[in-house]
Amino acid sequence: MPAIPANPDRLLADLDHLRTIGAVGSGVSRMAFSDDDIAARVWLAERMAEAGLEVTVDPCGNLFGLPPGDAPCLLVGSHSDTQPLGGWLDGIYGVACGLELARAALEAGGPRIAVVSFQDEEGRFGGLGGSAVWAGRMSLAAADATTDADGVSFGAARVAAERIAPPGARLGAVSPARFSAYVEAHIEQGPALEAARLALGVVEAIVGVRRWSLTFRGEANHAGTTPMPLRRDAVQALGQYVVDLNAAFAPIVTERTVWTLGRITVDPNAPSIVPGAASVSVQMRDAEAARLDAMKAAALTLAQEVAAARGLELEAEEGIALDPVAMDPALVDRLAAGAEAVAPGRWQRMPSGALHDACNVAAVLPSAMLFVPSIGGISHNPAEDTARDDLRTGLLAIAAALGGNEPAS
Amino acid sequence: MPAIPANPDRLLADLDHLRTIGAVGSGVSRMAFSDDDIAARVWLAERMAEAGLEVTVDPCGNLFGLPPGDAPCLLVGSHSDTQPLGGWLDGIYGVACGLELARAALEAGGPRIAVVSFQDEEGRFGGLGGSAVWAGRMSLAAADATTDADGVSFGAARVAAERIAPPGARLGAVSPARFSAYVEAHIEQGPALEAARLALGVVEAIVGVRRWSLTFRGEANHAGTTPMPLRRDAVQALGQYVVDLNAAFAPIVTERTVWTLGRITVDPNAPSIVPGAASVSVQMRDAEAARLDAMKAAALTLAQEVAAARGLELEAEEGIALDPVAMDPALVDRLAAGAEAVAPGRWQRMPSGALHDACNVAAVLPSAMLFVPSIGGISHNPAEDTARDDLRTGLLAIAAALGGNEPAS
Repeated sequence: MPAIPANPDRLLADLDHLRTIGAVGSGVSRMAFSDDDIAARVWLAERMAEAGLEVTVDPCGNLFGLPPGDAPCLLVGSHSDTQPLGGWLDGIYGVACGLELARAALEAGGPRIAVVSFQDEEGRFGGLGGSAVWAGRMSLAAADATTDADGVSFGAARVAAERIAPPGARLGAVSPARFSAYVEAHIEQGPALEAARLALGVVEAIVGVRRWSLTFRGEANHAGTTPMPLRRDAVQALGQYVVDLNAAFAPIVTERTVWTLGRITVDPNAPSIVPGAASVSVQMRDAEAARLDAMKAAALTLAQEVAAARGLELEAEEGIALDPVAMDPALVDRLAAGAEAVAPGRWQRMPSGALHDACNVAAVLPSAMLFVPSIGGISHNPAEDTARDDLRTGLLAIAAALGGNEPAS
Repeated sequence: MPAIPANPDRLLADLDHLRTIGAVGSGVSRMAFSDDDIAARVWLAERMAEAGLEVTVDPCGNLFGLPPGDAPCLLVGSHSDTQPLGGWLDGIYGVACGLELARAALEAGGPRIAVVSFQDEEGRFGGLGGSAVWAGRMSLAAADATTDADGVSFGAARVAAERIAPPGARLGAVSPARFSAYVEAHIEQGPALEAARLALGVVEAIVGVRRWSLTFRGEANHAGTTPMPLRRDAVQALGQYVVDLNAAFAPIVTERTVWTLGRITVDPNAPSIVPGAASVSVQMRDAEAARLDAMKAAALTLAQEVAAARGLELEAEEGIALDPVAMDPALVDRLAAGAEAVAPGRWQRMPSGALHDACNVAAVLPSAMLFVPSIGGISHNPAEDTARDDLRTGLLAIAAALGGNEPAS
């Protein structure tokens, strides 16, 4: 079964042009429904139309390029909006791959491939909003109520969706039932592929998240007059917790589990006062819900033990919990075969530590993702980059995986 | 040799009145040269004059009540200014003891005792400023240049010193050469005496201070996509440091040494970002300069080791260093004898963990301090309090110690 004859030069030319829309230094700024976001979507829509794809913009501003006809097709894409100041590849790489694959497949007479750019993945409003509404995981009314940092609602901003559609394009809903599967190419946004000197990552699951906000509450006191044995020092408890949490997690985690104590606040936070309270965020990510739940329980138990041993109070507040999202095993195997075909021995299966539109789409379609390396693991930053050879390899791996759009015989 | 016939009832009556000047709830607000600070000094000056003491207000606003005549006398006092919102005993207890002792001694025909209330001990301007200038440890010009939070200079504020002096009082310098020794009574401002169920503490030294500001600098990264082994996580280093510092100090410290990691800042301090930098203040206090220096060296060495082991950078900035101030051994023994006379077995020798005017006065006079317990160790707070029996006992211990003003025969 031949690979789709996708052209990496056209992909790179598209990406090179797209980075000029909303360019800020080496980065880009295309927050959802900003003028530059709309300009990029207009440019993409024009390329889709040129290629013979039927352009449809849905009420959320999600942009689709559909092959003519009603038969089911594969959907390939990601998002073209960016962080307030993001890199040139986050999201748009997957959209540009989808454009080139749909274009090349149409030129080649098959398979049937559609391209999508979802809206507001990066969270000017709620984050992942376009794909969430499209996949039925959030109502349009709920999305409309989300607001940006200036208080502008998604509902008010999305009237600009009609500006995206070129002449002849359709405005309206696109049913997920039109598609047989979803493939999202994305930069890794982490250092794992680079560190392992690999070209591709086939994503098996998007990790879930559990979070605690913990506060150790002791007693603020004069740092000169309070003897050490009489202190109820919240920072001492915090230090113990940071260290002991690693030991508490050791029997639970795998080498791919991560946990982050990223936010710390101390009260009253003065050099001459024994700290009375110390708060810490504990964020845990893993591809297995059961492991996350075990970590969450262990994190709380340890905090209770540390507080009790030091005569402190513990306040524990649960943060948002997101379950892991498994990718479709058959589609993962297909991407793995494509990866092996174009980069033999230079790819691995891996989880995605970041959230992506595929989290939502997986609720309605068999979904999978392919990662290309991020240089230095850097993303959400103008310095974000990927070797051009790796950008080519990612496209070709999907082209090989989707060639024929039918199980190999 | 009889004790000075000091009257604890008069002491308590004075303290009860003084707490009404600048009263805020159960606390008081008499920042240096505020109207209420001046009102309290005027009231004290009037009591001194009534008792037959010669009132002198020096250029800093330090208020002296001197026994008639030129022969050397003992100086007893502390300060009557307060924190922005302080307790009813901090400072004024020592001044009121000095007033009662000078008054009682004058009534009894000896010994010769003077009373002082130093100005700005609590640091509306520089802190300990009145005694620093008086003892020649700071020039008046340097003190004048210090400013309060609103930019008002000590130099501008101290013109109000003349408002303190009642009719007939003298305005002008008071030479330290007029005095033979300095005794300061003070609330402990810590929990040690209460915890040991003791009535009195005889201060042998006022501790010195060393301080580091340390910053562990790693790399901020995405908390989902950065595998644990590839992180350069500043909070992990900080936790290790907090815990290991206790072990590093263990062979150096005594049970009275204290250290405080009171201020922590994390950057970027977000739950979803691996922390790139974490700063911590390390304040060390002890009565021995050599021990402080050993602690300071150990604290830096450990930070270097922790940073190096984790591939982080370390930035270390030295904070202010104050050497310990030893109290006069003979005067300490005299206070100890007084304590044993009035509270047999219910007193201890101890360091002062807080700074006091005695730090400055010790540069020019044999000096010593006597502590009474603080309930719950609370100070710099409206809840600050001491049992009335303990307030009486403190006065009587000094009265016994200073009785006769000559070595026991």
